[in-house]
Amino acid sequence: MQLLVIGPGLIGGSFALGARRRGLFDSLLGIEPDAQRARQALALGIVDEITETVPETADAILVAGPSETIAPWIAKLQHHPGIILDAGSVKASLIDAVRESCGSLPVRYVPCHPIAGKEKSGPAAADGELFLNQEVILTPQGETDLAALEAVTAWWEALGARVSRLDPREHDEIYAITSHLPHLIAFAYLQQVDDQHLGHAGGGFRDFSRIGAADPDMWAPIFESNRQALLPALERLQQDLSEVHKLVEDGDTQGLKNLIARARSRRRKFDHG
Amino acid sequence: MQLLVIGPGLIGGSFALGARRRGLFDSLLGIEPDAQRARQALALGIVDEITETVPETADAILVAGPSETIAPWIAKLQHHPGIILDAGSVKASLIDAVRESCGSLPVRYVPCHPIAGKEKSGPAAADGELFLNQEVILTPQGETDLAALEAVTAWWEALGARVSRLDPREHDEIYAITSHLPHLIAFAYLQQVDDQHLGHAGGGFRDFSRIGAADPDMWAPIFESNRQALLPALERLQQDLSEVHKLVEDGDTQGLKNLIARARSRRRKFDHG
Repeated sequence: MQLLVIGPGLIGGSFALGARRRGLFDSLLGIEPDAQRARQALALGIVDEITETVPETADAILVAGPSETIAPWIAKLQHHPGIILDAGSVKASLIDAVRESCGSLPVRYVPCHPIAGKEKSGPAAADGELFLNQEVILTPQGETDLAALEAVTAWWEALGARVSRLDPREHDEIYAITSHLPHLIAFAYLQQVDDQHLGHAGGGFRDFSRIGAADPDMWAPIFESNRQALLPALERLQQDLSEVHKLVEDGDTQGLKNLIARARSRRRKFDHG
Repeated sequence: MQLLVIGPGLIGGSFALGARRRGLFDSLLGIEPDAQRARQALALGIVDEITETVPETADAILVAGPSETIAPWIAKLQHHPGIILDAGSVKASLIDAVRESCGSLPVRYVPCHPIAGKEKSGPAAADGELFLNQEVILTPQGETDLAALEAVTAWWEALGARVSRLDPREHDEIYAITSHLPHLIAFAYLQQVDDQHLGHAGGGFRDFSRIGAADPDMWAPIFESNRQALLPALERLQQDLSEVHKLVEDGDTQGLKNLIARARSRRRKFDHG
């Protein structure tokens, strides 16, 4: 079994390392235009070989490069006999773009979003256990071949992930709120943080702003491709911040306590199920 | 040496446990109007005795109850012969309120803010090592007795803390931005998070929103007493969010990348110094 990873960085490289460790594929190839990353992917044993063209023999192709390159790659691979999967964080606009290019979704393409990440990126950050106990969302469509869907499900499960399925627009709304909006907030918040602040910041700051160190080249396209779900979530936040502003300005202690208590009860549900 | 802790909860209890372990005091007393908390503080060995009145024999008095009770307690203790310290998160409005009550700041009162906390509160959350390697800010004033300042510094250092000094208004501006604003944001953000979102949320959400589970009774008064520094910080955030909204709406990829890169470089400075 041969795997081709297009973009063997954090996510693609982690999939390849985990798959190799578990014997899912015998041969692992990579496409990586950046020469330094290509050398790293080889040196770290993520792939056996860097190739410039897509081999017809690949049984599986993981499209894991920057999000704006995913739709063009899927379209280019529409007649490839292998199973194709991606790892993009936004699904509806991607599926729409592929459909627009190809007329319909290639049947052996299974749209995936592994809920795993780090602030680091590139092959050096890859970790074969990255997906262990993490969730992977699949957003298969009417066109999707059942055998391809089952194979992709089995690969993620072999890497230790919990696989679930969502409608692409529902997926995008959920991750607009649970992932994209927190990143956007952390980036906006950090604009006013200076060196003196950093020198006195504690554990609350550390955890709250951790995602603010994420990769600009990864996140700008995610925000843009999910703007349809992200902008309403941002507008709701702006309303909630205006409400808190008014409560603080008015000295409305009880109103503030009620709002904080609602936040606390939602956050505690996350920890305690 | 006798210590009285007014409010032997998370912070007061942690100070007492750490101080006892290091032999700083021979006798530890507590004032705690809540009967259940009082029993816990006794059962956990935080204090030897619960008292209703302040003993004249106390060498040190830590005022660690809810923030709105600190100024009245300091004023009440203004003629006490012991050294008085507090653990409040906001300093300028507290010092102003004490000065207004007493005419000037009691000379043996040393205003303190330990930068340590948890989402849990109460005596059961107390931990004698809570302040280890954490920062404690002192905001002494012209009135402050030097011997009292040195004694308080030595106690915090004995508990493993790094002690530094700031002007109270500078302190309040720094913590408005590094602590109070992140809490306010997390509380506002969680308003739109529902059960379905929680079921699919990942590690980014977990860390970003952790402080959103904090105590309403603690945080509403902090926001109100630091409104002078907090509201401008919130307004700056609202402007930065409007800028991000416009960048996403306009599809300004380069503008978004620049903003995210600024955030990333500031956050990386925190990790790498």
